[in-house]
Amino acid sequence: MCKHCNHTIHAHQHHFGWDNSFAPALKAAPGETILFQCLDSSGGQLGPQSTVEDVKALDFAKINPVSGPIYVDGAKPGDVLKVTIESFTPQLRDGAGFGWTANIPGFGLLADQFTEPALNVWKFDAASMEPALFGKNGRVPLKPFAGTIGNALAENGHHSVVPPRRVGGNLDIRDLAAGTTLYLPVEVEGALFSVGDTHAAQGDGEVCGTAIESPFDVVLTLDLIKDQPLKTPRFTTPGPVTRHLDAKGYEVTTGIGPDLWAAAKDAVANMVDLLATTQKMDPVDAYMLVSTCGDLRISEIVDMPNVVVSFYFPRAVFE
Amino acid sequence: MCKHCNHTIHAHQHHFGWDNSFAPALKAAPGETILFQCLDSSGGQLGPQSTVEDVKALDFAKINPVSGPIYVDGAKPGDVLKVTIESFTPQLRDGAGFGWTANIPGFGLLADQFTEPALNVWKFDAASMEPALFGKNGRVPLKPFAGTIGNALAENGHHSVVPPRRVGGNLDIRDLAAGTTLYLPVEVEGALFSVGDTHAAQGDGEVCGTAIESPFDVVLTLDLIKDQPLKTPRFTTPGPVTRHLDAKGYEVTTGIGPDLWAAAKDAVANMVDLLATTQKMDPVDAYMLVSTCGDLRISEIVDMPNVVVSFYFPRAVFE
Repeated sequence: MCKHCNHTIHAHQHHFGWDNSFAPALKAAPGETILFQCLDSSGGQLGPQSTVEDVKALDFAKINPVSGPIYVDGAKPGDVLKVTIESFTPQLRDGAGFGWTANIPGFGLLADQFTEPALNVWKFDAASMEPALFGKNGRVPLKPFAGTIGNALAENGHHSVVPPRRVGGNLDIRDLAAGTTLYLPVEVEGALFSVGDTHAAQGDGEVCGTAIESPFDVVLTLDLIKDQPLKTPRFTTPGPVTRHLDAKGYEVTTGIGPDLWAAAKDAVANMVDLLATTQKMDPVDAYMLVSTCGDLRISEIVDMPNVVVSFYFPRAVFE
Repeated sequence: MCKHCNHTIHAHQHHFGWDNSFAPALKAAPGETILFQCLDSSGGQLGPQSTVEDVKALDFAKINPVSGPIYVDGAKPGDVLKVTIESFTPQLRDGAGFGWTANIPGFGLLADQFTEPALNVWKFDAASMEPALFGKNGRVPLKPFAGTIGNALAENGHHSVVPPRRVGGNLDIRDLAAGTTLYLPVEVEGALFSVGDTHAAQGDGEVCGTAIESPFDVVLTLDLIKDQPLKTPRFTTPGPVTRHLDAKGYEVTTGIGPDLWAAAKDAVANMVDLLATTQKMDPVDAYMLVSTCGDLRISEIVDMPNVVVSFYFPRAVFE
């Protein structure tokens, strides 16, 4: 329930991919607040009882549905859509919060190393939102956000939902959480805004390709800013962004070399090795775990020819 | 003064570049604690009265001196050097803490955009270590660390100090601050450890190529771990790493596209534009400022073909 909402976009009001010819699910006035009943990124194909066999059977034509689109009255190309991210409420499955993290072959930063499908199903207390258990000892603090949030592209035709673009989309920015204000370029009349792919938690990078994929009700307020050009999305957070998990500090691994991509891969692979050794974990479990809570940071990008990428794993998960 | 130190490496005991034939400044036993009187990365060429003319006249043969090397008894190739980072004490210049940040043509992530030299000289209270003033309104919280910290390479000959390598070196990792434990691969007998390039503050990326370059006395304890192979440096922080600056949240810009490097450049250029507009700053001043406190993070690296790099600027600087 959302008492101050002007509209509700129900679960069935979703679409696959981006296309500026899609009929709006709703026409809204600037300043209105909307409740979106978002689906998880499997579109309901995975649930609390799912096994790795269900990962193998995923229908990728039904991956990553997004709720909308919303036609915002008066929005014109060149405007900015101001999205105030109000709240996230977990949808219950079997009476509890539910999520999944998978290694999907061919997808993820270390796809060449992890070639077999794998799945972790999460259950969490939807009222307390306490950290969710991973294996026997790991506890991942939750911080919900929408992985996919954006406007339609100016270019006609159907566009894959997978890559993010200058109008937003599958940004997977961990800090687009409640309280944050997001600014998105508008390329078509009405903006044609959609949102979905909700996550209960994710680290910077989303390194295994999935987060804690989880269905949430999302409340957003959409407003317009005229005559303020914007090249790519930007956002403002109301406060700190890592205090839900940083209290015990971090274990950090590095990748060093002339190629940013290779350095990022090395940093993550070194962390997988470290956790596999110190926590006696199966490497693919370590890979999925760090995708939900570890952060990829560029420590230095100027000491030519070598860069340093660091991967920060919060010690609170195991302490 | 360091009452519990076993040794002092004085300011004159420094070298330029890495070379495993350099004679040790000291032979130390594992577990000993050493005070290093580090020089700033200009080697004293810049001071509180310096102007941009002094940046133009910099002798790059004297850039980035490091203190040492330390021969650690018993260290063998394949071992790990455990560096416990104990403390940083600012060296006074004209009775106060001193630092400099420069745009050096040809150096820095946006070198193609900022082609003229520029300099900001910082003064701070060495006792309180309160945030240092930038321009009229900016205040950058301080968190000292050593930009360059590492061991000699196995490969004979002289190696530039600029790039970091698997044995460490010019890592410029912002979180190698007091309390952190750093683990470095050893490639030569005795490890031949050196440290320098101390910074009063830096953001992840060190995007303009310099931080708050500042001379500090550094206290480290060096110890050995046998038979624990390590590919690249790793470290453990005792607690949170951003609480000195995150209380007010962040302004965040993004870069999106198929190339990580271009996305990082776009994210930083967009932040420079944002601060130039909102704070009415000269763009080169914004560029130098964000290098000392803004963080480059990889938000997602899996939604092919496009990645998202985000640049986080702490709002506390202007609030």
